[in-house]
Amino acid sequence: MPREREIGGGIIEKIFATPKVTKPVLVCGLPGSGYVGKLAADHLVDLFGAKKVVEYTCDSFPPQVNVREDGTAEPLKAQLFYAPVGRGKGLFVFTADAQPTTSEGEYELSDAVVEIAKKNGVKTVYTLAAYITGSFAADQKVYGAATSKRMLQKVSANGATLMKGGGISGMNGLLIGMAALRGLEGVCLLGETSGYLVDAGASKAVLEVLTKLIDLQIDTAKLKEKAEETQKVINQLQSMSEQARESAPQPRRDQRPGYIG
Amino acid sequence: MPREREIGGGIIEKIFATPKVTKPVLVCGLPGSGYVGKLAADHLVDLFGAKKVVEYTCDSFPPQVNVREDGTAEPLKAQLFYAPVGRGKGLFVFTADAQPTTSEGEYELSDAVVEIAKKNGVKTVYTLAAYITGSFAADQKVYGAATSKRMLQKVSANGATLMKGGGISGMNGLLIGMAALRGLEGVCLLGETSGYLVDAGASKAVLEVLTKLIDLQIDTAKLKEKAEETQKVINQLQSMSEQARESAPQPRRDQRPGYIG
Amino acid sequence: MPREREIGGGIIEKIFATPKVTKPVLVCGLPGSGYVGKLAADHLVDLFGAKKVVEYTCDSFPPQVNVREDGTAEPLKAQLFYAPVGRGKGLFVFTADAQPTTSEGEYELSDAVVEIAKKNGVKTVYTLAAYITGSFAADQKVYGAATSKRMLQKVSANGATLMKGGGISGMNGLLIGMAALRGLEGVCLLGETSGYLVDAGASKAVLEVLTKLIDLQIDTAKLKEKAEETQKVINQLQSMSEQARESAPQPRRDQRPGYIG
Amino acid sequence: MPREREIGGGIIEKIFATPKVTKPVLVCGLPGSGYVGKLAADHLVDLFGAKKVVEYTCDSFPPQVNVREDGTAEPLKAQLFYAPVGRGKGLFVFTADAQPTTSEGEYELSDAVVEIAKKNGVKTVYTLAAYITGSFAADQKVYGAATSKRMLQKVSANGATLMKGGGISGMNGLLIGMAALRGLEGVCLLGETSGYLVDAGASKAVLEVLTKLIDLQIDTAKLKEKAEETQKVINQLQSMSEQARESAPQPRRDQRPGYIG
Repeated sequence: MPREREIGGGIIEKIFATPKVTKPVLVCGLPGSGYVGKLAADHLVDLFGAKKVVEYTCDSFPPQVNVREDGTAEPLKAQLFYAPVGRGKGLFVFTADAQPTTSEGEYELSDAVVEIAKKNGVKTVYTLAAYITGSFAADQKVYGAATSKRMLQKVSANGATLMKGGGISGMNGLLIGMAALRGLEGVCLLGETSGYLVDAGASKAVLEVLTKLIDLQIDTAKLKEKAEETQKVINQLQSMSEQARESAPQPRRDQRPGYIG
Repeated sequence: MPREREIGGGIIEKIFATPKVTKPVLVCGLPGSGYVGKLAADHLVDLFGAKKVVEYTCDSFPPQVNVREDGTAEPLKAQLFYAPVGRGKGLFVFTADAQPTTSEGEYELSDAVVEIAKKNGVKTVYTLAAYITGSFAADQKVYGAATSKRMLQKVSANGATLMKGGGISGMNGLLIGMAALRGLEGVCLLGETSGYLVDAGASKAVLEVLTKLIDLQIDTAKLKEKAEETQKVINQLQSMSEQARESAPQPRRDQRPGYIG
Repeated sequence: MPREREIGGGIIEKIFATPKVTKPVLVCGLPGSGYVGKLAADHLVDLFGAKKVVEYTCDSFPPQVNVREDGTAEPLKAQLFYAPVGRGKGLFVFTADAQPTTSEGEYELSDAVVEIAKKNGVKTVYTLAAYITGSFAADQKVYGAATSKRMLQKVSANGATLMKGGGISGMNGLLIGMAALRGLEGVCLLGETSGYLVDAGASKAVLEVLTKLIDLQIDTAKLKEKAEETQKVINQLQSMSEQARESAPQPRRDQRPGYIG
Repeated sequence: MPREREIGGGIIEKIFATPKVTKPVLVCGLPGSGYVGKLAADHLVDLFGAKKVVEYTCDSFPPQVNVREDGTAEPLKAQLFYAPVGRGKGLFVFTADAQPTTSEGEYELSDAVVEIAKKNGVKTVYTLAAYITGSFAADQKVYGAATSKRMLQKVSANGATLMKGGGISGMNGLLIGMAALRGLEGVCLLGETSGYLVDAGASKAVLEVLTKLIDLQIDTAKLKEKAEETQKVINQLQSMSEQARESAPQPRRDQRPGYIG
């Protein structure tokens, strides 16, 4: 039986395990546009066979249960996993079925996760997010922001384009903000995506920058497969779109890319 | 005088009775599209002369009083009833005048009901809901979802079509989710309905599956009467619609059925 | 200095006086459509020179200060007044600058007011509200609802038309609902009004029924003056509207009157 | 390390310093239309090299982090600064990256700031806001409201036009309302602005009235520079607009000026 306690903000925390942790980082991937972060986080959990450490339920999650393809109903939850990843290093992965629907819920859940990460020796919190452009790019960039100049340099040196202002909304922003407020460092990597489709290509791109940053080698074959399937859909959409465009005015291509976390 | 206590989330719980309970199940029917669950729950309360056990008032209910046809104003409340139903078995019925208007209220009220059910020995929580199709069907299906494979098999064996994904929103979803989180089993039965009219036919259909599942025989004559009245209205609407259609383009019939709990 | 305490739901209660109370009733009039209840409550306070007993500030009031015509900024507040009204009887009047913006705030403030009324010996809570029709009526009816059959009879016998279903939203509804939950009786009187203008005529009409109900004689001359001014505006609007109608299709007059508290 | 405590309403207060304070006033400038108040507050902090005294984080701030031009991500916060300003006088400046998104958050944060100001001997709270007109005025007026007649006279005597009713929304209103509720005086100065552009000219105008009111001499050269840049943009917009107007109907110029804090 997991140990259970209420931690404020309508959040119930259930501790499932207290793993022996060494040199850990925390990587967070949550549902959002393109499922960029969520796909990446799930990939890491699968790849390393990460074990559930904490489960959160939260009364500001959307009021619903999800139903799987076989009819099984499941309450919405957030989960923190842990896996040793070789060479004496460890990886916490935080993911969820949904983001809270209130500011309060987002702040409190972010803080709860950062607090437990800090207690377990985490020094840096990474969040994986989407950078929405509204168009399909052949070469998907990864954007980055960080809570310290030191990390900004590392992020830039490992292939991400630094953000030049704006904001990062939702828990992808708050998790690194809370990290900073608690004396940790935070990095957000944002994979360029159209925002129209589940985008495993963007997930793969952010994981490639992430794994350089944390010096970890991973297999991204499964994400590559999914990305190739998506690419086929994009190709079809684009050829349909090109046919349509021949008899219609050219759409503006200079629209300012907006960000949605 | 009922015993009264505040149980968090702005909910006041008043205990009216502490019945001697044997082999109970909990059946929940709340106001929603087509009043499918609410009609069914009210029918069970009437049929078994169930007694009020608990009354809940909640500051996230809509801020209003309801006025009856004779001018009597009544505060909104949720109620838990109990009746012995023969052969040593018992039935809790939970219903309400409204669902809470906030996520927090829905989660807290669902949890309060499941907690008291568990304390009274309930092992399975059933919620009765609507499955909105947007069109009138001659033969109204009942859909089902459950929190365990074991219950899914029973649900399927007793005539319900298993849901193939999606979600169940509102307290119909949360009540079975909370049941699962507290170690009980949860089943949601969803009666196919247009969503346009109060639908006693759908209520009757879900009660037929429910009573097979919990091995209980009930009289549904009153619901049948109401359903026949509704059917007359539907026939009129359809004949009006057919006349209109002769001079208008055919509406799409292949629209994806959406669910509203 | 008033005694101050926090009473939950973000409400601060400041006690300004503890009057010696005899045979009191509570009359509530709050800002809403047509200012029907607010005008009536202010009229009672002025007429009897009622003294402030309690002041409430509430963090679910709209986040603003009001500015008077001379530039003075004032925080929003709710106030409970008391006056002896002759023949050994007393009158509490509750009014406010605004209604809370959340369900929680409306429930908690309503409950706080009913609680203090009960402590002071109040047996019946009256709320004065608007019954919106969307059109200008020559003869403005007063509608009524009550939490007991006994009061419904009195309401009907004193000239109000009983409501035939529907709901009463906002604190006008909740105050009588909370009265019922705390074992008091509640009556809502709703003055028919177009909803387009501040309507002193409707205020006068509800006060006439109220004062019969509580057996109190009052001077309504000031409200009559205001009502006559409003009537002039209505006459102008109607003559303008009639001129316009001569060259336009007749508007539907059979629209179902909707209620807004 | 700052001392940290939770002060209700989801607000964390961190005390960074406990300055020796003499004859202080509190001036508040928050983000809002035209950034009128925020620019003015930032200008005061820069000018006097004010030191951070308190930092607030708040779970009703927008759920995001801001990203600077160099990619640095920063959590949203509110800050209270203090500087001695000569002649034995002191100045508290309160500003923030955002206003809370809920009524509750706005009330609680306003109250927290007023409470700490009162503890430090502040007698008068000034808020600097925008008075939106929707058009570009050559001569930008400053409007004023105050919580006492005494201050209204001073405000008027120092060049502000008194407001003639209406309301002041957001923390600019609540801060002076809370001041009044805690026995202090409050003044809101509102700089006339179009609402379309960041308006340093309006900031300069409110600072000129403010500094007369608190008898303080300041250099507004930097705001003047910014205002001149904005004026160039306005001139361009107006010449474009005039060209467009020659071939279009004249826009209404008599629109009632609305206020947005």
